[in-house]
Amino acid sequence: MIPTVEILSTGDELLTGQVVDTNSTWLMDRLWDLGLMVRRKTLVADDRTDLQAALREVTSRADVVVMSGGMGPTEDDLTAECVAAVLGAPLELHPPSLEAIARRFQHFGRPMTPNNRKQALFPRGAEVIPNRFGTAPGFSVRVGRALLFCLPGVPLEYKGLCDEAVLPRLAAGLESVPAGRVVKLFGLGESAADQTMRPVMDDPRNADVRFGYRAHWPEVHVKWTVSGPAAATRADRIRGEVRALFGEAVWGEGKDELPPLVVERLLARGEKVATAESCTGGLVAQLLTSVPGSSGAFDLGVVVYSYEAKTELVSVPAALLAAHGAVSEPVARALAEGARARGKATWGIGITGIAGPGGGTPEKPVGTVHLALAGPGGTSHLQRLYRGDRDRVRRSTAFEALFLLLRAMR
Amino acid sequence: MIPTVEILSTGDELLTGQVVDTNSTWLMDRLWDLGLMVRRKTLVADDRTDLQAALREVTSRADVVVMSGGMGPTEDDLTAECVAAVLGAPLELHPPSLEAIARRFQHFGRPMTPNNRKQALFPRGAEVIPNRFGTAPGFSVRVGRALLFCLPGVPLEYKGLCDEAVLPRLAAGLESVPAGRVVKLFGLGESAADQTMRPVMDDPRNADVRFGYRAHWPEVHVKWTVSGPAAATRADRIRGEVRALFGEAVWGEGKDELPPLVVERLLARGEKVATAESCTGGLVAQLLTSVPGSSGAFDLGVVVYSYEAKTELVSVPAALLAAHGAVSEPVARALAEGARARGKATWGIGITGIAGPGGGTPEKPVGTVHLALAGPGGTSHLQRLYRGDRDRVRRSTAFEALFLLLRAMR
Repeated sequence: MIPTVEILSTGDELLTGQVVDTNSTWLMDRLWDLGLMVRRKTLVADDRTDLQAALREVTSRADVVVMSGGMGPTEDDLTAECVAAVLGAPLELHPPSLEAIARRFQHFGRPMTPNNRKQALFPRGAEVIPNRFGTAPGFSVRVGRALLFCLPGVPLEYKGLCDEAVLPRLAAGLESVPAGRVVKLFGLGESAADQTMRPVMDDPRNADVRFGYRAHWPEVHVKWTVSGPAAATRADRIRGEVRALFGEAVWGEGKDELPPLVVERLLARGEKVATAESCTGGLVAQLLTSVPGSSGAFDLGVVVYSYEAKTELVSVPAALLAAHGAVSEPVARALAEGARARGKATWGIGITGIAGPGGGTPEKPVGTVHLALAGPGGTSHLQRLYRGDRDRVRRSTAFEALFLLLRAMR
Repeated sequence: MIPTVEILSTGDELLTGQVVDTNSTWLMDRLWDLGLMVRRKTLVADDRTDLQAALREVTSRADVVVMSGGMGPTEDDLTAECVAAVLGAPLELHPPSLEAIARRFQHFGRPMTPNNRKQALFPRGAEVIPNRFGTAPGFSVRVGRALLFCLPGVPLEYKGLCDEAVLPRLAAGLESVPAGRVVKLFGLGESAADQTMRPVMDDPRNADVRFGYRAHWPEVHVKWTVSGPAAATRADRIRGEVRALFGEAVWGEGKDELPPLVVERLLARGEKVATAESCTGGLVAQLLTSVPGSSGAFDLGVVVYSYEAKTELVSVPAALLAAHGAVSEPVARALAEGARARGKATWGIGITGIAGPGGGTPEKPVGTVHLALAGPGGTSHLQRLYRGDRDRVRRSTAFEALFLLLRAMR
């Protein structure tokens, strides 16, 4: 039997639009690896009535509930109290947790505030989950039909306790694992992807397969899950068919992300890339250097907003700028070649464009971007017109540049 | 009466960890401006049974439900169908919507696929919300006690239809507007913020005020909501008290964000900043240039990972690097001063550090960062030891650099 999993998060900050609940997104991804899809996710405010009602509902529906938030020392942290109320059990002090909290404060040389004692109180019958990543321990307890895990909302602590306590316990209870696969595409819309996928989706052999799409801007992901006997073999057969259908548009699979893939390929080839960015303002450099170990593949990047910076830092001829304007094919090529020369790198990326909202003209509307890639075989160039706001234009451009480099290394 | 608002989102991609539901975060923020806090948010899969059950629940609890997703042309887009089933009403073709969809495909020169016709089907009795941002129209309809809005999940379209149709309709129905305020702090933990806030929170005049915190890494936000008579005046009185308690740690309020605030201040002073980044890899430049109009305050930034790049691009003396290592106070100062000189800017930011996960030593553990700010009055320097992963160290460092610059301009 595959357990039904639900996620419950509490926190006013999650309902006022100030914090995005990235914890549960992370957990869903981990659960997907176990073949588990979360059935429902609920966010409630730090309010006793709402929280208790939500706890009753989720624990009457699901086999496993992973709850986060409300474990802090402040007044609006209500999780342990509300779980105890739903159980009809008292809160009890857990001395080892209190000692651990005190030790932690001592270690960091900070005074322990009286309200931190609250973090060592748990509903009677709960099993404490020690937290070596932060102050608040978690706990698990059976409520209704569900095994309920309560974890702190701080991402580092949440993820640490999931990895150490929650996921191993769930994995141990699984009999057979359904197989999920994801293929990642670039440069296609969801609707076009759906049309291309028709032959696979309409194949009678795949009638019980669950297909889906994700418009994970600027990428599109196609995914499917197969259950039952030979799930992995069937899922892999479909993968072969999907890759054949999409051809060059496929850049990755599963957990692949574009920046690490590019860095990994560069490191494997012993090559480096240098960047000269105008409208993306350092986003390409930032994406590349977000990858651990990227210093082996990246020495140098420049963000050159002004004409003068373009000329001084990467030797774009002033005459070229005067003749064609900054947003032009010749300047993109000069930026790429200048970056490559400056960085003594195998590859040079040059980007210039109009990210908006201002700066557009009828001839060069907002969203106009010129990308160039200089390499051992010469310099290639792409012109694009991206739709959307500044952030979207910049993001599309940066990812397109990485995709361009990845394809050049094939 | 303040209406109870709930959010319902559908989409397998939201439950498999591949897409973060940023739409609802955005809407919550807009609702907060109207004094409305979302009571609960629910995410369900693209599954007929689950979606219908969730629709029944939310429409029996809330006055207003804003639903998103499931409005696309593909097989797993079930919203209109499930709303119709819950209402016991048939789906009907809306010819004006079909025409609008056909026109849109014509305009972009793409062929309309047969499955797009589905996007013009709505439950009988629904009011169609035209969508000039994309293909799928939205609709509103009364279900149970609730006014239900169904919107496409594509962020640009979702936000467009919220702004045009949902929010004006909600605002029109409000009698009095509660007042919410947020003060944004830097360099404090949530627990310390809570302690500092005690005098305000324990003030008997504020007994009915709802206080809260958000650890919006690397910032902490303190917020409160006042209802009833003179709500705005009372909320503003509290603001004065909170600002006095936190002093220098306050950098903003309400919707303030650090990068736009820094750019705005620079533009107002007619000054520019240049950057030389090592461990942040262009993040500071990227944050600054994410702000529309930043080209008036930023000409140039460099990302200098290697020794050679530091020396060549911003004239860090090779001897300095050899004597102190790249991650050191003298090098941070040289980077800041080099950036300032290179960019002919009023301010220069220099950053060097160990973002991890590799590269740490006992003397310079992972998280060690040196920041420097060169300006008209000389160069200041900060050394930090940030906790957390690579992303967190980089983000903390970049925001600290912006905060440093903002304070220098006070």
